Amino acid sequence: MKMTSKTAVSGDHGDRTFTLGELAERIGADLRGAADIRVVGVAPLDEARPDEVSFVGHPRYAPLAAVSRAAALIVDASCKELERPLLLSNNPHLTFARAAALFAKPPRLAAGVHDTAYTGPGIVFGDDVAVGPLAHVGADCQIGPRTLICGGAYLGDGVVIGADCIIHSRVVILDACRIGDRVIVNSGAVIGSDGFGFVQDEQGHHFKIPQMGIVQIDDDVEIGANSTIDRATLGKTWIRKGTKIDNMVHIAHNVVVGEHCLLVAQVGIAGSTQLGNHVVIAGQTGVLDHVTIGDRARVAAKSAVAHSIKAGEDMAGIPAVPIKEWMRTYGNFRRLSQFRNQLKELAEKVKELEQAMQGNSDD
Amino acid sequence: MKMTSKTAVSGDHGDRTFTLGELAERIGADLRGAADIRVVGVAPLDEARPDEVSFVGHPRYAPLAAVSRAAALIVDASCKELERPLLLSNNPHLTFARAAALFAKPPRLAAGVHDTAYTGPGIVFGDDVAVGPLAHVGADCQIGPRTLICGGAYLGDGVVIGADCIIHSRVVILDACRIGDRVIVNSGAVIGSDGFGFVQDEQGHHFKIPQMGIVQIDDDVEIGANSTIDRATLGKTWIRKGTKIDNMVHIAHNVVVGEHCLLVAQVGIAGSTQLGNHVVIAGQTGVLDHVTIGDRARVAAKSAVAHSIKAGEDMAGIPAVPIKEWMRTYGNFRRLSQFRNQLKELAEKVKELEQAMQGNSDD
Amino acid sequence: MKMTSKTAVSGDHGDRTFTLGELAERIGADLRGAADIRVVGVAPLDEARPDEVSFVGHPRYAPLAAVSRAAALIVDASCKELERPLLLSNNPHLTFARAAALFAKPPRLAAGVHDTAYTGPGIVFGDDVAVGPLAHVGADCQIGPRTLICGGAYLGDGVVIGADCIIHSRVVILDACRIGDRVIVNSGAVIGSDGFGFVQDEQGHHFKIPQMGIVQIDDDVEIGANSTIDRATLGKTWIRKGTKIDNMVHIAHNVVVGEHCLLVAQVGIAGSTQLGNHVVIAGQTGVLDHVTIGDRARVAAKSAVAHSIKAGEDMAGIPAVPIKEWMRTYGNFRRLSQFRNQLKELAEKVKELEQAMQGNSDD
Repeated sequence: MKMTSKTAVSGDHGDRTFTLGELAERIGADLRGAADIRVVGVAPLDEARPDEVSFVGHPRYAPLAAVSRAAALIVDASCKELERPLLLSNNPHLTFARAAALFAKPPRLAAGVHDTAYTGPGIVFGDDVAVGPLAHVGADCQIGPRTLICGGAYLGDGVVIGADCIIHSRVVILDACRIGDRVIVNSGAVIGSDGFGFVQDEQGHHFKIPQMGIVQIDDDVEIGANSTIDRATLGKTWIRKGTKIDNMVHIAHNVVVGEHCLLVAQVGIAGSTQLGNHVVIAGQTGVLDHVTIGDRARVAAKSAVAHSIKAGEDMAGIPAVPIKEWMRTYGNFRRLSQFRNQLKELAEKVKELEQAMQGNSDD
Repeated sequence: MKMTSKTAVSGDHGDRTFTLGELAERIGADLRGAADIRVVGVAPLDEARPDEVSFVGHPRYAPLAAVSRAAALIVDASCKELERPLLLSNNPHLTFARAAALFAKPPRLAAGVHDTAYTGPGIVFGDDVAVGPLAHVGADCQIGPRTLICGGAYLGDGVVIGADCIIHSRVVILDACRIGDRVIVNSGAVIGSDGFGFVQDEQGHHFKIPQMGIVQIDDDVEIGANSTIDRATLGKTWIRKGTKIDNMVHIAHNVVVGEHCLLVAQVGIAGSTQLGNHVVIAGQTGVLDHVTIGDRARVAAKSAVAHSIKAGEDMAGIPAVPIKEWMRTYGNFRRLSQFRNQLKELAEKVKELEQAMQGNSDD
Repeated sequence: MKMTSKTAVSGDHGDRTFTLGELAERIGADLRGAADIRVVGVAPLDEARPDEVSFVGHPRYAPLAAVSRAAALIVDASCKELERPLLLSNNPHLTFARAAALFAKPPRLAAGVHDTAYTGPGIVFGDDVAVGPLAHVGADCQIGPRTLICGGAYLGDGVVIGADCIIHSRVVILDACRIGDRVIVNSGAVIGSDGFGFVQDEQGHHFKIPQMGIVQIDDDVEIGANSTIDRATLGKTWIRKGTKIDNMVHIAHNVVVGEHCLLVAQVGIAGSTQLGNHVVIAGQTGVLDHVTIGDRARVAAKSAVAHSIKAGEDMAGIPAVPIKEWMRTYGNFRRLSQFRNQLKELAEKVKELEQAMQGNSDD
């Protein structure tokens, strides 16, 4: 089967258009060039059409920028000499993201509850909530205004969700969990599954500790596809405002993740661990249970955090140590063959010396 | 949107209440105090209300215990001097879990098949089975008594499930897989997906080996959210009784996991590997294909098991070695800078000695 | 509840039967023995019945082969002396897979759209497409002939899928993503979720970069259960033809995976990284963003790729280095205790030598 050319890739924008003058004002950039050119979207430098805006992230892209067909380029002062219409910004990455957000097509979902969705009794819907086909909204849920519950999403009983959230298809949010405003949960994420809590009995059998708490997710959090956040044993597992969590991240019961953290894909955080604010945990790293990670600490990818980390520390390794120590030790690790040869050489020299001494003594 | 105070956190219990006397009998504890006080739930020491029971896991919590408002405290002999109503137990963690289980609210799901669920032909339902909204039960399934198939769960054709199971929302159990009694499968888990089996042809293309076996899960197993257990190529992938599997654990085709094992989050077990009984694999560890792990072996977090492990061994590292060897080697690893300095020093001394010898010889 | 014996394990085949003569022709093997024996399936050596075919992967299994009840054995020349009906092949693994594929039961799903499925406007279905119960096919999708959209699968708007695909239960394919022919997507996989793209503003808050691109998956690709493939920021995340991806693999935005690659379970590939053709990445390995991996490169399990890799290189370690270097360094790593002892010994000897020299000089 052929794919028709009408299918969207880049170049498929929403219906919004702006003049460069309007755009500059909206994104807080300083326009150098004609204000009345009308633009319909954003695109990479080499793909942008004359009605699209692009950006230059680094002066090394200046040659590419010079030949781009884009209507205007978002740049910082280092590129202000480019003889093109420019949108000057101190932070062109951020300004470009803001421009892209203006043009981005919101998910299409008509307000109201679709006929094929299931809704339990006692639900309170805010204005303009949309519940897609085959979604499940359990009894006594409260859903804030303009929130989208996409097709096939599942909310258990008593779930509370704030305003302007996007709950994508096939998300599961289980009983009594609470979600703030402007939260995005990507498909396949599971929020409120049982924590992994067992006690061994006399026979070494694992007796399940009932997981009776909830998950609370605060405003402006994003949760990645197929991530899991377990409910607390008692009390709450808590993701605080502004934190962004990538795909397939595992957050165990009673963990607290502070504000504005980044947890990259396939990270795992074990039970009752506490992260401060602005913490960054890179991909595939694991953090043991019951440790504390201070504000603005950062942990490199594929590390294993076994102990608490002070604020502002950068860590790496299995187990994680301060990154400078890790680099020094790792440098020596790679010199091991050299050490081995030096040891052998030294041992020979010492032997020779001993024999020579022996000889001298024998004189 | 404000969250209403009626939403459940801790303090939200089921409808069951017990006197301390009844509770002591049910959980097998020895009551020191008035038997007629009525309690409605369990809570942490510092949050417990006068109608809740709490527990002291360690004598260091005795000061907190002394000021707790709890109706009674589950403790072991080390805390028996506390001047509070006590529920004495040899294993207070276990006793507390048993108490919590008595109070825990079972998932609410009315018996019977919901109107919006799909059910194929030839299904045999036991008594009081509940099938939630938008669930899918394929042809010829057999579902044991009192089992809950929660809303949005998917069972393929010919799936057999025992009694008293909880199959959570959005679980997928594919054709012909078999589940025992009292099994809990958390949301998003996939049981019976195709194993990763391919043969290369002459062009280096990967030809799919049909995955024709099943997954068998025995009694009292729990499977975590978003975990995957692949069906066997031929025969069965087998999770034996009492084993508990955390979130995002990957079990490949033809693996056998023995009885009463614990597999912590994000573990991966490659094809045809066999685990004995009471094995513990900590988080993010990987086990290679076709290896055997003996009874009661334990593997530390973030390890990579490349060879078979004898019964009772404790292992760690990438690749995994006996944990004592790992600790010794790792200790030396951290001393590498020191070794390097010692080597340099020694080399200098030897040089001086050589020069001195040279001087002596020249005399 | 008892499990009935009619439930499928091995020994449960489809309805197709072949004579050995027909089978030999179909799978391209050279038959030694009677051509008219009728067979109904494949099975392991020790389980095969007289109407099933088995195979011998290695001469060490010859004793087992000699007593197998199988109707015929697929073998290579090393086993041609076996006094049994034989199906000779240069690549018995591949030939066995082809035989198994002939007998494998295709998923049962009647052509047409099930009553309980949701379908949006503007969809173009090819001939004999099957859409199972409670599936969701969004507006303007194009589905190629004979493709199965299994029960509970979710396709967003404008999704394009080719011919002869199997989209398993609970798969999510989001808006505008494109899938080729003969693609298999296992349950729980999410294709087209938002990439993890944020820009920090002045307060250290993370501003979401709209993820406006798509995912394109070419012909003959297989995607494992609960894997996630994020849509591109702009342009496309691209999985090229013949590549096989295992369970819980994470592919970030704008990644390109070349043709005929194998990505084993729990691998993670960070943003904009490019893999060549025939690349193999073993389980639990992570690859950093913006690196390039050459054709036929292979990376061992549990590695971390931090830099680009040349074509044909074999790599291992955290960070990954050429595997020979890794083995040499790791060998020395395990000798660290020995090095430590040698250092100590040498230091003592040097001390003795110094004292002896001192003595000589004092003479």
